[in-house]
Order: sequence, then C-alpha cells, then structure tokens
Amino acid sequence: MKQVAEEQQDFVKDVTKMSDDFDRWYTDVVRKAELADWSGVRGMMVVRPYGWAMWEAITRAFDDMIKESGHENWAFPLLIPREYLMKEAEHIEGFAPEVAWVTRAGGNMEELEEPLAVRPTSETIIGPLIKRYIQSHRDLPKLTNQWNSVVRWEMRSRLFLRSREFWWQEGHTFHASAQEAIDEAAMILDYYRSIAEDWLAVPVLAGRKSPAETFPGAVHTLTVEGLMRDGLALQMGTSHYFGQNFARAYDISFSNKENDRELVYSTSWGISTRLVGALVMAHGDDSGLIVPPRVAPVQVVVVPIFRDDQGREKVERFVKEWTPQLKAAGIRHRVDWRDERPGDKYAHWELKGVPIRLNVGGRDADAGQVEMVDRLTRQKVGVPVEGIARRLAQELDDFQKKLYERAAKFQQDNSYELGTLDEVIAHYRDKGGFVWTQWCGESGNCLVCNRPAKYRVALAKAY
Amino acid sequence: MKQVAEEQQDFVKDVTKMSDDFDRWYTDVVRKAELADWSGVRGMMVVRPYGWAMWEAITRAFDDMIKESGHENWAFPLLIPREYLMKEAEHIEGFAPEVAWVTRAGGNMEELEEPLAVRPTSETIIGPLIKRYIQSHRDLPKLTNQWNSVVRWEMRSRLFLRSREFWWQEGHTFHASAQEAIDEAAMILDYYRSIAEDWLAVPVLAGRKSPAETFPGAVHTLTVEGLMRDGLALQMGTSHYFGQNFARAYDISFSNKENDRELVYSTSWGISTRLVGALVMAHGDDSGLIVPPRVAPVQVVVVPIFRDDQGREKVERFVKEWTPQLKAAGIRHRVDWRDERPGDKYAHWELKGVPIRLNVGGRDADAGQVEMVDRLTRQKVGVPVEGIARRLAQELDDFQKKLYERAAKFQQDNSYELGTLDEVIAHYRDKGGFVWTQWCGESGNCLVCNRPAKYRVALAKAY
Repeated sequence: MKQVAEEQQDFVKDVTKMSDDFDRWYTDVVRKAELADWSGVRGMMVVRPYGWAMWEAITRAFDDMIKESGHENWAFPLLIPREYLMKEAEHIEGFAPEVAWVTRAGGNMEELEEPLAVRPTSETIIGPLIKRYIQSHRDLPKLTNQWNSVVRWEMRSRLFLRSREFWWQEGHTFHASAQEAIDEAAMILDYYRSIAEDWLAVPVLAGRKSPAETFPGAVHTLTVEGLMRDGLALQMGTSHYFGQNFARAYDISFSNKENDRELVYSTSWGISTRLVGALVMAHGDDSGLIVPPRVAPVQVVVVPIFRDDQGREKVERFVKEWTPQLKAAGIRHRVDWRDERPGDKYAHWELKGVPIRLNVGGRDADAGQVEMVDRLTRQKVGVPVEGIARRLAQELDDFQKKLYERAAKFQQDNSYELGTLDEVIAHYRDKGGFVWTQWCGESGNCLVCNRPAKYRVALAKAY
Repeated sequence: MKQVAEEQQDFVKDVTKMSDDFDRWYTDVVRKAELADWSGVRGMMVVRPYGWAMWEAITRAFDDMIKESGHENWAFPLLIPREYLMKEAEHIEGFAPEVAWVTRAGGNMEELEEPLAVRPTSETIIGPLIKRYIQSHRDLPKLTNQWNSVVRWEMRSRLFLRSREFWWQEGHTFHASAQEAIDEAAMILDYYRSIAEDWLAVPVLAGRKSPAETFPGAVHTLTVEGLMRDGLALQMGTSHYFGQNFARAYDISFSNKENDRELVYSTSWGISTRLVGALVMAHGDDSGLIVPPRVAPVQVVVVPIFRDDQGREKVERFVKEWTPQLKAAGIRHRVDWRDERPGDKYAHWELKGVPIRLNVGGRDADAGQVEMVDRLTRQKVGVPVEGIARRLAQELDDFQKKLYERAAKFQQDNSYELGTLDEVIAHYRDKGGFVWTQWCGESGNCLVCNRPAKYRVALAKAY
C-alpha cells in the first residue's frame, strides 16, 4: 500500500493537556472524542457520527435560514471540464494548484479527451449552467445553494481545518443590480454570524478582508472570524461579492426593464465542516470538548450507579419512569448502560463534552431525584424528576448562554488596541488575540505607512 | 468545447403525449417541469430545485427511519486508492468498467503514485476504515449510513434513472451473527417499501433477486420493484446481505463472546435520486406530473384571478387573510402572482403536478370561499376559507391515498399468472406488467426446465 497517510493510525491513549501542547491536544480530542480520523487516503478524513451529527445540526439551522429568505437547493455536477475552469483568470490562478483531475475512466482506464476537475468550488460549472435559466429581469434573482463536498489538493493537513476533502454549503446568487448582490453577500454574512454566535456560542468579528486575502475573482470578501483558545483566529465563514466578474467570464446576461442586455451581478458564500473544528478549539479544556447544547448530538447523559443486579433493576425502573419525558421534549439524551465504572463513564462523557450529566443511584430513586452536573462548572445539584424535562430545557438554554459569555470574555481579554507597526510586532512575539489598529488600505505588506488611515482593522495570527 | 453533451440543450416547447412516446414524454416532463437537465458535462445531470426538493423530502423521511433504529451517519472519503478497490474479486469485476480515475493533481498536474477511484459505491473504503473501530462483540453492530453522490461511467444515460453521477444514501452495517445481518437487510427493505408506498404512493413487489442479478460480492440481494405507466418495472431500492465475503476480503473480525476471533457479517443498501424518476413515471399523465402530497415541494397553489388593479387589490387582501393559516399548518403552498393568464398558470401547475389548486377571484372573495381543483379528478368544488387549513390537510391526505389506489389498480390490472415459457414470451411480445410464474431456481437462462418448481417468481421488462 503506497498511498498510506502520514498521520498516526493508532488509537489515542491519553489526551495531551491543552496547556502543554495546543495542537496535539486538538488532534487528540478530535480523535478520542470520536469526531473524526485520518482515513488512510493521504490528507482525506473520515468524519465519525459524533462529529457528523454536529455538522448536521449546523446544516439544518443554516438551511432553514436560507430557505426562509427564498434560496433553493440544487445539485450541480461533481466534475468540471477543464475548459470551464479556465475561463476566469484570477479564479483559475487561485485554484489550479489545488485541483485533482479525472483523466481516465471505464474498463480499460481509457484516457478522456479532456480532463475533468473534481470541483474545488463550483462557480465555474454553475456559471455556464445558470445562464440557461436567466433570460430577463423577471428570472432574477436566482438564489442557489448546494450541500456537497469539494476536493483541494492541500499539502498541509489538520482534521476539520485543512484536508483534501471537506464538506460545506456553497451558495451562488445572481442579481439584476450591484446593490442587491452587495446586500445579499452582507445578509448571508449576518446568517454566518448567527450560526457562529447563536448556535456555536463563538463570538466573531465580522468584516471585510484585505485585498490580498480576497477570494480569487471577487470584488470583495466578507468574513466572520472567531478567536480560538490558543489566541489564534479562525475564519468561520466567507461571503464574496463578484460584481460582474464571473458574469463577464461566462457571459451571463439578462434583458433589463429597459429591454437592454446587461451582465448579472453575482455572489458566492460558504461555511464548512471546519466549524466543527472551531467549536472544539473555542470551548475545549484539559478534560476534552465542551459542546454547545444547540449542536450537541447528546445534550444530556444519564449515568446509572449500582452495585448489583438488584440495584441495577431498581435504577433502571426509575430511569424508565421519566426518560420518556425527555424524548417527548426533544432533549437529545442517552442512558449509558455500558459495563464500565461510573468514574470512567464520567471521564468519557466529559471528553465528549456533553453539557449535562445526570448521576442516578438507588438513593436517588428513593428520593425521586437525580444528581445533575454541568460540564462547565461541574457543580452537583439535586433535581427532582417531577418536571425534569422543562428544567433540563432551561438548564441547556442557560448553558448555551454561559458558554457564549465565557468565549466573549476570552475574546475581550485577548483584544488589544495598538498604534504602530513596532508595537504590533512586539505584541505577536509572545501574545495572540485580536489587535485593532489603523490602516491606509493601500500598503501591500505592512499596516503603517504614515499616510492617513482609511480603515480600522483587526489583525490576528490565524489558522 | 469538446466535452459537450449529446443531449439537446434547448428548452422544451411542448410536452410529447405519454400515449405517443413514453420515453420522450418522460424527458420532456422532467425538463419542462424543472426537475432536472443534462449539465453540458457528458452523462452528468443538474438537479433543479423542484426536483431536489422531492429528493430532500425522501431523505428526511428515510433518515428519520434509520436513526430511530440506531443507524448513524458518517462521511467517508470520495476517493478510493486502487488497491482498496481491488480486494474483493467479484466486486471489482462488477465495478471496474464504470470507474472514473483521478490520476493527476496539483499545480503541474503531477501524476499520482497510485490512481484514486471516484467512489462508485463505498464498500471498499468503508471496509478498511471500519475495522479500526471493531475490536470485540461489544463494538457490534456498527450501523453506518452516508448521504452522498457516486460516479459510474455509464454509456447510456437517462435523467434520474441512469447518469454518470447520482445522489443516494448508502448504508453499510456490520454484525456479530449471520442472522442479525440477514434481519437487518430485510428490515431495511421494509423501510424502502414504506418509502415507495407510503411516501411516493407507488405499490411495489418486495423480494429476492435471482443469482444473475445479485449485487457483485453479495450472498443475496433484496429489491423493491415498482410498475411504471408504460408497463415496465423499475428497481426502487436494493438491500444486500454479504455474509462474510467483504469481511474476509478486508479482514474485518471481532472477538466473540467465547473470546475467539470471528469475521463479521455485513450488509449494504441504497436508494437514490432515481426515485424522483419513479414518481414521474408511476403517476404522470399527458398533462405532466402528478406529485404525491407527502413529497410535493408545492402541495397547494393559489391562482388569483382579476381584471384590473382594483380587482387585484381585492383578491390580494382576501388571500392574505387566510394564507397564514396554511403556513402555520405546515402546508407547502405558493401564490402565483406572475404576469401570466390564469389558463397558462393552470397548465404550468398541472405540468408541475401540484396536487391542489385554489382559484380565487373577486366573487370568491365576496363569498369568503375559493374554488378548489385537484390534479387527479379536476373536479371544481367551492370551499369556504373558514377552517381551510384543516380542510386542505384532509384533502392532501385523501389525495395521497387516491394516488396510491390508482397505482395499485394499475399494478393489479397489469399482473398476470402464466405457466409456460412460451406463454411468457408471447405475453411480452405486446404487453408489459408483472408476470407471476414458477421457477426451479437453478436454470441460468430460462424459467421452465420441467424440474419441480422451488420459487414463485415475478418477471417484468425493466429499466
């Protein structure tokens, strides 16, 4: 087997402490908490159910948002003829180094007349297709979205953050005016802010990227950036305004109200499975993950405690009395009946970041209560099982808020206001976080050129 | 542009009559009703929002079913090293002629050390991956599923039924005993029967395929087959029991309760976007689609009728009074305010197969009612808007039942009981439908060999 991965294949024994080595901690937690693994195909990951369920929660939330505002899901082809890819000069320059090519197919592996790119992103196939469906201004806007995976031949790899295949949504919209497209890109960025802040409990900076970091072919790129617990920033979603650049390359025009032909204005935008990596790095601690309740595959875990079969039966009877309430209330929960010691189960579910744990022993059954422990404070509270579903729903809401507040405080504690380039360089010598400063908007490489400042900008070391 | 599709790219003007030419009717309806089109990349389709929304309804329904019985969604890699693909002899023999190969990647299109297959199905990558997660009988069963697209280099193509890329779910499960795996494959087949019958309103025959039609590498293949309106059968879902064949090829074993190593027993099963084609061919008529309400993107369409601005305002005010009821009741509806004549709108929504249309004019507004027309009977009924949401919910339920009954009657009318091979040959000379007969189970090519019959079998011409 030649194409084995460079990554270690053995099981993680113990999780490295976050304070000892953040990068190792991250990889250990992602693997040990059963979110994802390297696949054995170089640079490509396998996302396991616990990680995929988080992504599914994100997809449901975002899909609801965009459908409410009139967007529609399509399925565009996975493979793109080379000629299509080559039409927008900046775009191909940006993506060509990362493309995987299908060159042969069929029984004798016959060579294709023209190579087909495995999509690195779909602008170049959607352009030629969508123009068929756009004749007049009455056909606009066209608000398309697609959930899929894309392939980019990255040389470095990191689970969820950078891999040769990742899963995402890519939105592509086409409008009759520049303003409408600019507004669309801004509206989507606000959805992304909501996904990050309201669902993942990660406060973000939302703004425009510098020209050097703008998406290939775009007029401007908007981004939401979150701060991870190692002080590095992570890009959590981007929204691009293309002006008429793609419309020009692919000849996508419409007859406007004056019956003149005009090129459309377009946008594209995406969030990906890297958001699962974001929630790991934004909330985790030495014990493992802390998962925001709104995207947690398991929100509440019940750990039964007993010594013998008789004790087990008693606890089981008790648990069965009130867990149907949880199911009816839509609380995602699990009862852990595995043959392990309670202490090992606690550590297991702490590692997996389940927000609330309920310990239930024989004495609890007698008293009609459970012992509730939350993953953030670890305080133990006795809770009567009468009305427990409503109580847990409230506790989960509170947990979501507290997690956000904790991350917001971390962001605030790691934000700085600096005036000169020397200060910035000195700062990043031993610190991370966001640095706010002034920028002329023109210098290519530095932020201070003594010309009058035009922009207030945020800087960070980033993933 | 060399790699243009063989398929026509122009818009469909009129829909061919079903009775004149079923195949052309099918393609015309799929394209004109905006379900899908050929993409310009040979053999690959683009699924448009109206078609994709039907697939989304199917995915939600099936995803709920499998999650309820403990299955979990994973994301396995798109690309599979050639060596992996080559391990199970029958399987590779079955799929090698249809594989598309990635052979080059990166900036200079450098040749890879080993070609990577774009997955035609994922048994060969899931096998080597899942074995990492299976040590003992306590790790079993492993019930995995994935929603994705696969590529098969087909030479013939037909929208939804046969294309080089299609979208599906592929389930792969691993068990500690043969019986458990056999039961799993059977349970999933019953889910597929439910998707076909309860959601798509297509009655199916559920049974086992003959050895010649068994999936490459499987011990047996179960299938659900529906009858299309041209008398041909369509395979609507298959569920395969592999015994230990894949486990042997990929060395997937576990320590059983006696602490001995044993190979696992596995299954795989899939339904795909071809189900959208199935509902078109099972229910359509000369006017176009008839969509089962449970998967209809638009269940109810409202067509306002007016002569002038004043009339329009009156109707608009009236419609706004009661459409919020529909939204609250979860009835998927649309009000068609386009600048078209009512007759053209009727034809448009009939073509798209919307189950119920509500015509609303000024006099209806005065009377506090609407004119309801259903796509099956086309009878017009006055319906008061008071309590209209509940009434429509009931009408949609009834519509779903009637559509199923109509298809069941068609299946019954096109099922035959025949005894000899000569009769069967004569039958298929000018008829379609299901033919029931007896089979020894051994003859490779024919159904009658004068040995005692072991099986009651159904025959059909098929897609």
